[in-house]
Amino acid sequence: MHKSRLEAFSDGVIAIIITIMVLELRAPEEGALSALLPLLPKFLSYILSFVLVGIYWNNHHHLLQVTKSVNGSILWANMHLLFWLSLVPFATIWMGEHFEAIPVAIYGGVQWAAGLAYFILTRALITHHGVDSVLAKAVGRDHKGLRSLFLYTAAIALAFFSPWLSAGLYVVVAVMWLIPDPRIEEKVAEKGHIN
Amino acid sequence: MHKSRLEAFSDGVIAIIITIMVLELRAPEEGALSALLPLLPKFLSYILSFVLVGIYWNNHHHLLQVTKSVNGSILWANMHLLFWLSLVPFATIWMGEHFEAIPVAIYGGVQWAAGLAYFILTRALITHHGVDSVLAKAVGRDHKGLRSLFLYTAAIALAFFSPWLSAGLYVVVAVMWLIPDPRIEEKVAEKGHIN
Amino acid sequence: MHKSRLEAFSDGVIAIIITIMVLELRAPEEGALSALLPLLPKFLSYILSFVLVGIYWNNHHHLLQVTKSVNGSILWANMHLLFWLSLVPFATIWMGEHFEAIPVAIYGGVQWAAGLAYFILTRALITHHGVDSVLAKAVGRDHKGLRSLFLYTAAIALAFFSPWLSAGLYVVVAVMWLIPDPRIEEKVAEKGHIN
Amino acid sequence: MHKSRLEAFSDGVIAIIITIMVLELRAPEEGALSALLPLLPKFLSYILSFVLVGIYWNNHHHLLQVTKSVNGSILWANMHLLFWLSLVPFATIWMGEHFEAIPVAIYGGVQWAAGLAYFILTRALITHHGVDSVLAKAVGRDHKGLRSLFLYTAAIALAFFSPWLSAGLYVVVAVMWLIPDPRIEEKVAEKGHIN
Repeated sequence: MHKSRLEAFSDGVIAIIITIMVLELRAPEEGALSALLPLLPKFLSYILSFVLVGIYWNNHHHLLQVTKSVNGSILWANMHLLFWLSLVPFATIWMGEHFEAIPVAIYGGVQWAAGLAYFILTRALITHHGVDSVLAKAVGRDHKGLRSLFLYTAAIALAFFSPWLSAGLYVVVAVMWLIPDPRIEEKVAEKGHIN
Repeated sequence: MHKSRLEAFSDGVIAIIITIMVLELRAPEEGALSALLPLLPKFLSYILSFVLVGIYWNNHHHLLQVTKSVNGSILWANMHLLFWLSLVPFATIWMGEHFEAIPVAIYGGVQWAAGLAYFILTRALITHHGVDSVLAKAVGRDHKGLRSLFLYTAAIALAFFSPWLSAGLYVVVAVMWLIPDPRIEEKVAEKGHIN
Repeated sequence: MHKSRLEAFSDGVIAIIITIMVLELRAPEEGALSALLPLLPKFLSYILSFVLVGIYWNNHHHLLQVTKSVNGSILWANMHLLFWLSLVPFATIWMGEHFEAIPVAIYGGVQWAAGLAYFILTRALITHHGVDSVLAKAVGRDHKGLRSLFLYTAAIALAFFSPWLSAGLYVVVAVMWLIPDPRIEEKVAEKGHIN
Repeated sequence: MHKSRLEAFSDGVIAIIITIMVLELRAPEEGALSALLPLLPKFLSYILSFVLVGIYWNNHHHLLQVTKSVNGSILWANMHLLFWLSLVPFATIWMGEHFEAIPVAIYGGVQWAAGLAYFILTRALITHHGVDSVLAKAVGRDHKGLRSLFLYTAAIALAFFSPWLSAGLYVVVAVMWLIPDPRIEEKVAEKGHIN
């Protein structure tokens, strides 16, 4: 099967997810600068989630660049990833409104599940393309993905001691991923444009 | 006419439908784990609808893979399917908030109508491509579609005796469809990539 | 300029417009069938608007099929059409909640403006393609578009005497357009697939 | 990397941004014409933002027409632009509800940041394509972009003296950009369709 609709559908869902979070930044009831202050935690949560979801879109983009075709398992592995990403707005808003142990831990739980879903998607793609494919070599052992899962696990535990340290770890994961995956970009560069 | 915009428009509508349901999972007023408990029925309804709408997207994807071109009737048959799918968020939220006979039956009614609309769409496509086309052979007699309509009918009746049994039947339909249609995937595989 | 992004952007905006209207069909506070009754006028408004916006998408689809390229004026003529369509959800909800002279007339006003915007878009496309182009011949004198504007004008005036008669005229316009434009479909059929 | 998904994702996000603003135009509680009056400032804010975001989409469209490929920095420069655009609905609604110094200045601040982000995006594209590329020549020194940033700066300062004059400057920027960029359109015209 062609990958173009999987890309288009994922683009649509991720575009909506990344944009609807901002709907919860409700315009203040008055026009004073001080009225923006209570929105600050929500706004910082929004920035964090915008970046983390943006990272998924970037990596998804890179991953699908080296994908030649898809099958039923890949469609569902992708749907599974979109399911967890669709919970990000809920977790973002809750964390932004209640910066406490449970909401911060739940936020990490959703990110953890999305990270695992992304990992499963890469495996489904490698299985379909073969271990000798450009894709398999480009993804490699995915140390970064496993490291993220480890950091999220630590952040979830930390949330019960200090939500701030926990949120700090989420920022660490974001920074770690912010640079697009050189593994794939190099492989693509080696053989010119794929697609 | 080309099918690409029909695919793009359907992708857009389905992406929005699948994502806006999550907007109704409002973040709790407090940060305790117990505050998530009242959201559980809504969350389970969301998962069910995410999977059912995801199945429509998957099957639509498979169906359009073997489609060569479209005409006016197909555009409207597709619009008719999207209309019923657009009512899924409403039915999901109502069922999630009031797990009682009427909302559970209405949920089944919407799914029943969407199932019928999908069936009509396959017929419009077969009429356009001819009964000897790859598409017609791939879709075949569509036992699975008819079986779903039968199960939804039973579930609607059951809702008045036990909403739980009724919801159980919706899960059965979801599981039945979760595996992408082997009829079409085989036909596509036989003759390589179509599109 | 290529037309593909104009199509994609229009698909996105129309998909959102057609879907967000349903967000206003709020799930009732209780689980009884009688709780659906007060939603009926909103639901009927939704169906009417779904069909009318669906008609725009269909006609836009047909129109862009015979379009070869676009320029700056066409981009803005299209944006202008999308602006008026974006007001349809507002007008739909108001009419659904207050089935009275003013909201029903405003609904007609929005449809009238969208109709005019569509007419302007066809003129911009004909100017760009030349009066001897397939597009110009396919669109012809656009009697149907002018007839719709006339019917909307009548419906706006009628709204002050009888909202029901006025709404009846909106249904007449919908039925009149429901069949995809044979003018363009024939021209496309004559010369095979364009695009 | 191919540019098609960057276009599709941007189209999706911009389509959602431009459409969700209208959700805040809530249908009045009664059916009288006078009930529309309090919506007027919100409606004017909506028109302004629709046009300004529409300008971004148009210019983005023109810019990507002369783009051959993208890299990681471009993906993030684009994401950065979408981030600021995603704040436009918030600023629009606040300004529409509280037409006072701070909300009007914040509106300008968001537009200023989006303008800067667009400027950064053009630089990232020029760096990637080389200073001798069609793109670099088409964009040139981008006087219009710099002039907009200057006008936004002035408007932010003016907001504290007169919100009306400040809003007047936003309209000036909109009018200034409303005509699609002749620099790029000419270059495209010179060498036929690029893409």
